[in-house]
Amino acid sequence: MSTGRKVDFWFDFASTYSYLAAARIFPLGPEEAADFRWRPMLFGAILREQGYTTSPFNTQPAKGRHMWRDVERRAAGLGIRVRRPETFPQGSLQAARVMLVGLEEGWANGFAMAVFASEFQHGLDIESPEVIAACVDLAGGNGAAAMSRGASAAIKERLRIETATATAAGVFGAPTFVVDGELFWGDDRLDEAMAWRRGDHPLQIARQGR
Amino acid sequence: MSTGRKVDFWFDFASTYSYLAAARIFPLGPEEAADFRWRPMLFGAILREQGYTTSPFNTQPAKGRHMWRDVERRAAGLGIRVRRPETFPQGSLQAARVMLVGLEEGWANGFAMAVFASEFQHGLDIESPEVIAACVDLAGGNGAAAMSRGASAAIKERLRIETATATAAGVFGAPTFVVDGELFWGDDRLDEAMAWRRGDHPLQIARQGR
Repeated sequence: MSTGRKVDFWFDFASTYSYLAAARIFPLGPEEAADFRWRPMLFGAILREQGYTTSPFNTQPAKGRHMWRDVERRAAGLGIRVRRPETFPQGSLQAARVMLVGLEEGWANGFAMAVFASEFQHGLDIESPEVIAACVDLAGGNGAAAMSRGASAAIKERLRIETATATAAGVFGAPTFVVDGELFWGDDRLDEAMAWRRGDHPLQIARQGR
Repeated sequence: MSTGRKVDFWFDFASTYSYLAAARIFPLGPEEAADFRWRPMLFGAILREQGYTTSPFNTQPAKGRHMWRDVERRAAGLGIRVRRPETFPQGSLQAARVMLVGLEEGWANGFAMAVFASEFQHGLDIESPEVIAACVDLAGGNGAAAMSRGASAAIKERLRIETATATAAGVFGAPTFVVDGELFWGDDRLDEAMAWRRGDHPLQIARQGR
């Protein structure tokens, strides 16, 4: 049920763990789902601010190997299908901009799920305008019109602002959940973020008991 | 119960998440506990090989802030006490060397738990020889003798070999669990590593079903 407490779900379309989180949030019942704000960001820009030029999964081969195996193991536990795309990470700029159009027009969450599935279930290239336009159509928007709006100066600027907002909120990884200023990093913290939203996280309970 | 499958528990005494893992493994029943091999390593040396000069929790302030809050939240959920020491990260070289003495003499696991508790429950300095010697005594060894053996060339060399063994096994973070060559990074993957040890991890089951 809706608690009135909103959860900011910061994600990047290039991120495998963002996909795992999206695939769990998307099928929530309507009242719970309504508490989630899907907020695309450019995690690459945040990484660059931290001094990285590419994904640590690429610069640290052992970490990269573990990530793919970990995603495979977690996906099996969560009942989520996953397939490794040929290119990783993929550029998420175009998809993130079109997502902002979808947030204004009301088809954003379905679009996001279609993009993640295209990339991590079907191995498609989300840098392809055709793939992104098809995802818009699938979600109930107008693909051609959304691609055009997504390339506007206003949307470009809005994505920069959103990414800066994420950084200012303390976001340093994807996905991140923020509830009442409480920040949870990683798909594997979704259950804790949900508990915080309900008010029954063990740390909240421990403090009430004092 | 013991499955005969061994779990290599690679840890670093400087690591908060290694503490959380140790605090969960230590109280396991004797048969389960017997399947765990506590293996100290110098994670700092592994980080340096990856090009880092200090902990990412220090170089990325947002990541460091999240880590402490995350540890506090997880500790509340697991019923583990945690307190932030004044110095972080602390040098773990001395404790790791003495741990190797303990592995030969049979008091290693109790020593490890005493060191972690000194550091992360009582805020003590594990770079202090007095603290480490006291932990040996507490675990049933001879503090003075163990400190002396821990400073020997043979033990120093053995720790270097252990750390190189960890790297060769694919370890890039602490703690890491390795079961039958399957590598799990992070305290939050302990349950999955335990499942793999039993043979009932969802990915193992999915593959048997094929």
